[in-house]
Amino acid sequence: MDLHINEQAERPKYWQLYWQIRQQILHGDLLPGCKLPASRALAQQAGVARVTVLEAFAQLQAEGFIVSRLGAGTFVAADLPLPVPALSDSFTPALSPWGQRVLQAKHRKVTQGAVRQPIDFGFGRSFPHIFPYDIWRRLLARYLSTDDVMLSRYGSVAGFYPLRQALADYLQRLRGVQCTPEQVVIVSGAQQALDILARLLLGHRDEALVETPGYTAAFELFRLRGAKVTAVPVDETGFAVEAIPAESRARLAFVTPSNQFPRGGTMPLPRRLALLHWARRHDALLIEDDYDGELRYDGRPLAALQGLDEDGRVIYLGTFSKVLFPALRLGYVVLPEPLLTPFLRAKELVDRGAPTLTQAAVADFITEGHFERHLHHLREAYGQRRQVLVQALADYLPQRVHYSSAPAGLHVMLYLSEACDEAALVRRAADAGVGVYPGAAYHLQRPAPPSIMLGFSGLSETDIEEGVRRLAKVLA
Amino acid sequence: MDLHINEQAERPKYWQLYWQIRQQILHGDLLPGCKLPASRALAQQAGVARVTVLEAFAQLQAEGFIVSRLGAGTFVAADLPLPVPALSDSFTPALSPWGQRVLQAKHRKVTQGAVRQPIDFGFGRSFPHIFPYDIWRRLLARYLSTDDVMLSRYGSVAGFYPLRQALADYLQRLRGVQCTPEQVVIVSGAQQALDILARLLLGHRDEALVETPGYTAAFELFRLRGAKVTAVPVDETGFAVEAIPAESRARLAFVTPSNQFPRGGTMPLPRRLALLHWARRHDALLIEDDYDGELRYDGRPLAALQGLDEDGRVIYLGTFSKVLFPALRLGYVVLPEPLLTPFLRAKELVDRGAPTLTQAAVADFITEGHFERHLHHLREAYGQRRQVLVQALADYLPQRVHYSSAPAGLHVMLYLSEACDEAALVRRAADAGVGVYPGAAYHLQRPAPPSIMLGFSGLSETDIEEGVRRLAKVLA
Repeated sequence: MDLHINEQAERPKYWQLYWQIRQQILHGDLLPGCKLPASRALAQQAGVARVTVLEAFAQLQAEGFIVSRLGAGTFVAADLPLPVPALSDSFTPALSPWGQRVLQAKHRKVTQGAVRQPIDFGFGRSFPHIFPYDIWRRLLARYLSTDDVMLSRYGSVAGFYPLRQALADYLQRLRGVQCTPEQVVIVSGAQQALDILARLLLGHRDEALVETPGYTAAFELFRLRGAKVTAVPVDETGFAVEAIPAESRARLAFVTPSNQFPRGGTMPLPRRLALLHWARRHDALLIEDDYDGELRYDGRPLAALQGLDEDGRVIYLGTFSKVLFPALRLGYVVLPEPLLTPFLRAKELVDRGAPTLTQAAVADFITEGHFERHLHHLREAYGQRRQVLVQALADYLPQRVHYSSAPAGLHVMLYLSEACDEAALVRRAADAGVGVYPGAAYHLQRPAPPSIMLGFSGLSETDIEEGVRRLAKVLA
Repeated sequence: MDLHINEQAERPKYWQLYWQIRQQILHGDLLPGCKLPASRALAQQAGVARVTVLEAFAQLQAEGFIVSRLGAGTFVAADLPLPVPALSDSFTPALSPWGQRVLQAKHRKVTQGAVRQPIDFGFGRSFPHIFPYDIWRRLLARYLSTDDVMLSRYGSVAGFYPLRQALADYLQRLRGVQCTPEQVVIVSGAQQALDILARLLLGHRDEALVETPGYTAAFELFRLRGAKVTAVPVDETGFAVEAIPAESRARLAFVTPSNQFPRGGTMPLPRRLALLHWARRHDALLIEDDYDGELRYDGRPLAALQGLDEDGRVIYLGTFSKVLFPALRLGYVVLPEPLLTPFLRAKELVDRGAPTLTQAAVADFITEGHFERHLHHLREAYGQRRQVLVQALADYLPQRVHYSSAPAGLHVMLYLSEACDEAALVRRAADAGVGVYPGAAYHLQRPAPPSIMLGFSGLSETDIEEGVRRLAKVLA
């Protein structure tokens, strides 16, 4: 027998023996029914102790590779249907139509490039030094005592109840959302909520209205359902309700009223009410993605669309990614009463719920006031960064470049002159050590107006200024 | 104006004013264009300071509810399309065919009854005192230092790389799985992996083979896809390959070879190889759910089916719910090379990945040896509990009751006499303060043989014995 024991290997010697004999049987080098050398001889040959061989034999026997017959010796099992016939070609799994659509989906992680530039204007990052990790650590530790049974059970599919309570209260007080704790369901992020909602609400050939430019990752989920996505252009005050095509039969619209993504801009009250009129007239549902509604730098955040609706037509999506930290992976959805049961039944089947420990810590973070204090700090820190960015753009950039000016959110969109090659600019900026992200990815109309996205939340003020200075050279 | 300020309320007074005026405008009690009382008069009427009224007015103005005209006063905005016409009937969202199937799905959280009995044989719980929370706390704290940027960014969709590395090594060494770290993808649990796989691999009317009794939550996911689920009966050594209907055109089979769920029993090597033969002959994929393969009490765990396959036909599912704690919400899937890209593209669209902090802590938990030590403790603790349970069943139960005897896993199935009413038994046990769970939920054939499930992992040895004693009285 051909056996090699590697003395330096991390794997135990018995395991190495076991694995090699096993593979020789599977590959037909040791034929079913054939006799193996005695353990003593094998030990000598492999240069290991006999007990090591016996341990390997025990495992091989437990798994059915070999049998030992008293007085006769050890044999490769005789009844093994070996070899499993080899394939002529390499095997390619057949994908469902859904799987094929996934491969064709245009969405790419545009904000998470493989190569991170020294000064990277990636979107949605949080600046590490703002979050109060010491408090967070303390809250986590609270639930990590050995006699706490909470962690040893599957949690509720809808989420940890105290967190749902804390959110219902917070959302009414600070976002003008009207809901009971029962209507709040914890998810792993807005994307998960959208995935479940798209499946619940959209059938093949159903129509959904979306904003362009907009959050294309949501649109792709709608398309995966086989739905028709109708793009409604946005202007400086968001979703243009009056531009909804008269012939549209959509019964679902996806909107970002607080701060249009990615263009910036807030839907004013008359437009919000007009959207509710539209929804009632068409018996439609609205998905309000409030991805960064907390982050306004010119006064208190404006209340959500959801609070204006008395009809249960608005589904509200929120996330902790932007206001706590992205790696937390926690979001929430506020559902109209009639959607609760379908959503929870679906969630129960597709994902059993978020980690209880994290949910408990976030609940305390909110109820003990840390959350609002943190939001206050965030608004200060990010508002200042935004100010630095906008000032640098005014100081260094050519006149013909304009940019979104809403004092909100975590990024600024830079609109370039028509002749500008967006992709080339991104590449040249990268050569200068600056990471900027193409705006075309967010547009449904083609050709998209050339633009780039500058996320400022992960950078220091110095880096922001230096980044713009380098960008200006590239643009010059 | 009709305004009520609650001095005791948690909500600030300005907020109470703001909300009441806002609601009066929305409900048509204050008409568009009408003049509001002066702030001084309003303050007097409501019994608050004038600055409180001004604060409320500022928010109302920012949100577009009121306008202030210099010298003229404050008015409800004139251009508001109010009221939004009321609905005649209460609104019910129209569900997609998928949504309708979700509501009809038979799966219920059978192991998570709303009422927990004093002695509860719920499945899949972990005993709180076994997990080394002190070590866990230390590992979490390691990544919670304020200068760590890891948490401030979105993590990789495929999972935290060091965890994928640690798992690839662990899985080969202890589960006989053959894979690279790249093939390991972190998910929020086996259910999420199944949801994505069902969508990728099953189209409308495609056929999938499943075990009966079996893990019905998986089958429901297949059915939601519109797929045809064919039940293959299991015997004491698991999935009966020879019982696959000859006319079956299935190209997917879902199996639990290490410890058949919920009947118990391990697929022997010849049967495993026969299943691989079948898969090659039918160009099919196998999903191996190794939900508790680590937990064998009669020696080393047996290697996984995946390691026998050289053709990339086996998808391996694992979870930390059973061996760390359920509330962690972390699982993994080992994918054949050609499925990696489709799976990751899908995962990117439906869920952005698991929390980085938890993943980092689990990675260290494995690489620093805590995981294997913990598995050792688990096997001792659970093996002993199982022993106590089996002994108590032998001591107290009537002869006609038999039970699964595989020395593995976290539960024992109790098979009752044909005449026994399963549901009535569950109710009577509950009356005696004992939670047991109906076996019928796991069977696809009807009528299902009466049986109940006894999970022992969340109970002390004393409680296990007392629970069986009470159950015996109920059965007598």
